[in-house]
Amino acid sequence: MVSRDIRNAIVDLESAYAACLDDDRLEAWPDFFTADCVYHITTRETVDDGYSLGLFYCHNRAQVSDRVKILRNAAVFSVRYYRHLVSNVRVVGEAGGVYAVEAAYAVFATDQLDGITTVFSAGKYRDKVVFAGGVPKFKEKVVIADTASIPANLSVPL
Amino acid sequence: MVSRDIRNAIVDLESAYAACLDDDRLEAWPDFFTADCVYHITTRETVDDGYSLGLFYCHNRAQVSDRVKILRNAAVFSVRYYRHLVSNVRVVGEAGGVYAVEAAYAVFATDQLDGITTVFSAGKYRDKVVFAGGVPKFKEKVVIADTASIPANLSVPL
Amino acid sequence: MVSRDIRNAIVDLESAYAACLDDDRLEAWPDFFTADCVYHITTRETVDDGYSLGLFYCHNRAQVSDRVKILRNAAVFSVRYYRHLVSNVRVVGEAGGVYAVEAAYAVFATDQLDGITTVFSAGKYRDKVVFAGGVPKFKEKVVIADTASIPANLSVPL
Repeated sequence: MVSRDIRNAIVDLESAYAACLDDDRLEAWPDFFTADCVYHITTRETVDDGYSLGLFYCHNRAQVSDRVKILRNAAVFSVRYYRHLVSNVRVVGEAGGVYAVEAAYAVFATDQLDGITTVFSAGKYRDKVVFAGGVPKFKEKVVIADTASIPANLSVPL
Repeated sequence: MVSRDIRNAIVDLESAYAACLDDDRLEAWPDFFTADCVYHITTRETVDDGYSLGLFYCHNRAQVSDRVKILRNAAVFSVRYYRHLVSNVRVVGEAGGVYAVEAAYAVFATDQLDGITTVFSAGKYRDKVVFAGGVPKFKEKVVIADTASIPANLSVPL
Repeated sequence: MVSRDIRNAIVDLESAYAACLDDDRLEAWPDFFTADCVYHITTRETVDDGYSLGLFYCHNRAQVSDRVKILRNAAVFSVRYYRHLVSNVRVVGEAGGVYAVEAAYAVFATDQLDGITTVFSAGKYRDKVVFAGGVPKFKEKVVIADTASIPANLSVPL
């Protein structure tokens, strides 16, 4: 059984990650990852079919940072507010200091023009977390979206 | 006050239960219950009116297992992905080793044809949890759905 | 780092607050606040624009209690069921026994006539929590709603 402090730190990591995105502090977002991270958005249909392709792939933190620049330069950004609810966070395994973590998420989008909120994406996270100097980071974050209608040109990370 | 480890184990039970259903591992679902369990789905309207009738009732784990067979044989199954967010998990009482637990849930359904996600059901769980050899199980799980528009022929457990 | 027991007590406070509202135990709702509390509902748009105005403001617990009376007298009440999912609860700071807490929420509304559930409001809580005789209370609760389409005549607190 994982220690209570590690468990709490991992739950807090997931919460802080979500708050960073929802508060539109995108420049701080890459700090949640290790330098050699994998960040991958895919759909459940793709995973169930046995493919590893996805909507979006970063092979390291530099690519995550590049993503931020692209999003900031995209004129369409900030048309919507996003809200991530990350729930059911569970540490499902540990090997050599790498914690396997699963969680369910739902992201709600609010149109800034009409103020109406709808379900944007639901799915799960399949993460690997490591601790560097006591600070938890995502070595791997795989977003497996149930929702398949996400535009390729995602205006917010999941 | 309930011990931190018991609290964590109960929160993890709720999360693992949700993941089992959402990952479509239905054959493992009955293992979350005790042999003499009660599993009951009802609506808030019914409860508020003082009735104990419901949409669905299992009086023991064998009936829960039967339900899995029925769902697997139903041709309509797998038209949708489901995602349970279980939140606000609270241990509200304890007597003789039986923990009374409440939680809020929202289940999102994603249509596999168009990939769009909508709210399928929201409501609360009113559970009784016991520990058998250190492993938490549901002795009772009462699903009180706010949503009354659930088809009688539920294609996924709540 | 905040102690595990304080952390758990704050998470439980958020859960119990939500359950109180969703169970329609409005008369117990003011007890979650200190006598000198601030309870404030505003929108994200307002906050981003640097304004402190909001949809709704209580400057102390007496005003919170007044709100309950108004809601109980309003004929429109009880046309909908509400369900709050409060997630990503994080203690983000502490000073002089006052804990700064942030959380994400989504509230679902179920129409009692057709039984259909929709997203009513999503947003965040920015709270200040104090402990009085070991019991956590909200000294301040600021609801920052992403959703701007909330009717001024809110039929349930957020």
